[in-house]
Amino acid sequence: MQSQNQEFKLMDEQKLSVDLISAQYALKDTRGQKNAKSLVILVNGIELAGKGEAVKQLREWVDPRYLLVKADPPQVLDGKQPFWQPYARFIPAEGQIQVLFGSWYSDLLSTAMHASHPIDDSLFDDYVARMRAFEQDLKNNHVDVIKIWFDLPWKALQKRLDEIEPSEIHWHKLHGLNWRSQKQYDAIQRLRQRFTDDWYIIDGEDEAQRDQQFAQHILKALAHCPVHPVKASGRWKQEKVPLVLQKPAQEQLEKAEYKPELKKLSRKVADALRTDPRRVVILFEGMDAAGKGGAIKRIVKKLDPREYEIHTIAAPEKYELRRPYLWRFWSKLNTEDICIFDRSWYGRVLVERIEGFATPVEWQRAYDEINRFEQDLIQNETVVIKFWLAISKDEQAARFKAREETAHKRFKITDDDWRNRERWNDYLKAAADMFARTNTENAPWHVIATDDKYTARIEILRTILKQLKGG
Amino acid sequence: MQSQNQEFKLMDEQKLSVDLISAQYALKDTRGQKNAKSLVILVNGIELAGKGEAVKQLREWVDPRYLLVKADPPQVLDGKQPFWQPYARFIPAEGQIQVLFGSWYSDLLSTAMHASHPIDDSLFDDYVARMRAFEQDLKNNHVDVIKIWFDLPWKALQKRLDEIEPSEIHWHKLHGLNWRSQKQYDAIQRLRQRFTDDWYIIDGEDEAQRDQQFAQHILKALAHCPVHPVKASGRWKQEKVPLVLQKPAQEQLEKAEYKPELKKLSRKVADALRTDPRRVVILFEGMDAAGKGGAIKRIVKKLDPREYEIHTIAAPEKYELRRPYLWRFWSKLNTEDICIFDRSWYGRVLVERIEGFATPVEWQRAYDEINRFEQDLIQNETVVIKFWLAISKDEQAARFKAREETAHKRFKITDDDWRNRERWNDYLKAAADMFARTNTENAPWHVIATDDKYTARIEILRTILKQLKGG
Repeated sequence: MQSQNQEFKLMDEQKLSVDLISAQYALKDTRGQKNAKSLVILVNGIELAGKGEAVKQLREWVDPRYLLVKADPPQVLDGKQPFWQPYARFIPAEGQIQVLFGSWYSDLLSTAMHASHPIDDSLFDDYVARMRAFEQDLKNNHVDVIKIWFDLPWKALQKRLDEIEPSEIHWHKLHGLNWRSQKQYDAIQRLRQRFTDDWYIIDGEDEAQRDQQFAQHILKALAHCPVHPVKASGRWKQEKVPLVLQKPAQEQLEKAEYKPELKKLSRKVADALRTDPRRVVILFEGMDAAGKGGAIKRIVKKLDPREYEIHTIAAPEKYELRRPYLWRFWSKLNTEDICIFDRSWYGRVLVERIEGFATPVEWQRAYDEINRFEQDLIQNETVVIKFWLAISKDEQAARFKAREETAHKRFKITDDDWRNRERWNDYLKAAADMFARTNTENAPWHVIATDDKYTARIEILRTILKQLKGG
Repeated sequence: MQSQNQEFKLMDEQKLSVDLISAQYALKDTRGQKNAKSLVILVNGIELAGKGEAVKQLREWVDPRYLLVKADPPQVLDGKQPFWQPYARFIPAEGQIQVLFGSWYSDLLSTAMHASHPIDDSLFDDYVARMRAFEQDLKNNHVDVIKIWFDLPWKALQKRLDEIEPSEIHWHKLHGLNWRSQKQYDAIQRLRQRFTDDWYIIDGEDEAQRDQQFAQHILKALAHCPVHPVKASGRWKQEKVPLVLQKPAQEQLEKAEYKPELKKLSRKVADALRTDPRRVVILFEGMDAAGKGGAIKRIVKKLDPREYEIHTIAAPEKYELRRPYLWRFWSKLNTEDICIFDRSWYGRVLVERIEGFATPVEWQRAYDEINRFEQDLIQNETVVIKFWLAISKDEQAARFKAREETAHKRFKITDDDWRNRERWNDYLKAAADMFARTNTENAPWHVIATDDKYTARIEILRTILKQLKGG
């Protein structure tokens, strides 16, 4: 991509501005349409190479109301949160343009330059690979990403440092790097070349060209309007539905046995959740009335509500639909140490697949996206514990009936539940595909038969203990 | 309010649950309606008095999908951000219920107990008064607030501490208070009595009654459905439109004079913005084409885009309309040190008043709400600089025409602009009322005549310098 500079031509400024504004409005008009997209512009580079000026000039050429600019000092990649977490809330909605000064790449660079335990090349490259996979997932989910590196040769940088206004010196020291050190300059150049081969490189020495090159790259990115494929390319290979889903059988536990065992286990689970140094994410999927709520109640029995958060996942809101489907989960994972999900991101390959809310291409791609998402969590001090609660069709009918007959449980049963029941086999098939594709080594699925509630609850608590340290 | 316990009766548990669920659904159904509201439940009290248990029990009685629970450790009130800032994003949308374990009051208590420079009683009371005013503003904007204190006598607390499970000890030390110290216990009781006279007090000793009392208070709060008044009570006293708005006259500045002066001033403004230790908020209001964008451009001329944030305020989104109108500004003030607003919260008393988006009661109340909001900012190391750009009707017509004739400026002019122009006098009247009511001593309005752009820009920069330290 670095060769594009050779064929670069300055455009008439007013034409450039008109074209940019038209492209902005065209982007805005894609909201809610099939070709909807948004654009993220990652801006990075050598200090004083003119990133700021180029963005300021861009603001003047475009309609500034529809260009969001965000800048934050770099964060250390310390393995405590996925690299995308600090930026999750700035991933724009359809029709929006977001400039990110600094991004996961500046965090990576900064970490590699500063860390007391420096990142070696192989870990560095591993980060870059994961970042690119994340960007590809964004693109597939209608968020285009363009990456622009503002470069400046060593001598030009030194000259600009000589000429800097005194009041700006503080600002330029903010990032904690010493731009007077050639050793450091060389180290940055060496490192950034490990990831910039799919970036646009802008030569910051030529000020007139610099701003135009930047703007023209963005114009090109805006003009490129993707057609999102709907149909998947190959034939879908449906997995066989495992027997445990078809006939979830289990022994019955007597109340006299259950009560003391539950008491002991919920105490142990609370202790283990408290002492495990990692964040814990527990999620439940399964048919309606399979006992998700009841199981959650027993997990938190000995915890204080201030120690955990329960997310009950319903249909997404409109503003959530305008972003990648994982987006609404990113923000929910930014907080408590113990997060419990009553339904989860797997909705993409269950209800959204079955009801047609996601196209075949979308849900078929989602397995890998979800796996990457969970691996990012796991690599950042998080335990992911996944349950499928398997109920038999007869037992579900009995529970539905009981709910309808109990005043304070009636809210738990709606027409949707009966409709879902009619699609019983579709759900089993979708679940089978889900297990086959997302049952990873460090985030395995636990299928729990729940016709006998007591047995199920005990099994769930024991399973959690097994996945926790000291459990 | 403390006497309500005497008449307290236990309800049948299932009836209580059904009533709570019905009330939840009724609340949900108010979304977008005239009687729409949401509910914030502030939960506070003595350690081990059973706050957590009561909330957990509540979760079991209600439909947990529509009960949000948030808990965060207390923050120190250090005068760097308004007390409501950490909680702004948890103010619920219409139809939602939000439990806040800990709130501005726990921050106040915690600050008073811990601060190296303790808060004296008069400052404490001042905080309480401001918190109550904030809650009243929330209520007026459809967010009901109920406050519940879980109390526990000294001896009962000591007994519970004796019986605590070992794994919970860590958790109960989280808030950094020593509940074994009677001196400290007494201090907390003395302090909390300075604000709990409009709280519900629940006696944590009686566990059976405790959870029911809590739930019944919430049931009552949900059942109380306000009718939001639309018509204001008295007759509105319209202020006279000041002459400067009617005939904004000014001398013309020659380009030869303007250029060097602009250069000098924008340098000085950048320096002053960088060195002033306070956060700076600059906002612009005024007729279309009055030069807001151009003025902002000159303010940031010598700054890097990473040093400031520009918020261009358009019509609120749907999810913003479901919350108090100031809500969308709270979140925007949580970030950069230099925030510039191209239009602002004053939209409430300008466009929303004129177009009827706010009822008379709402916009007439807004002046005080805005004044309180700005004072909260100012008391927390923020400078608020407010500009009204005054253009003459003829000059606006000329600029509209010029915009329509210039390709890259055409996006700046829409049918809305022409329609607003027809309401010229309404805007002048609304502006006159706004000046009269929100021109406070430490957040004064600066009215700048802008028919001559050069003079206007110079005057704006000089005005900013005057309000800044070292300016």
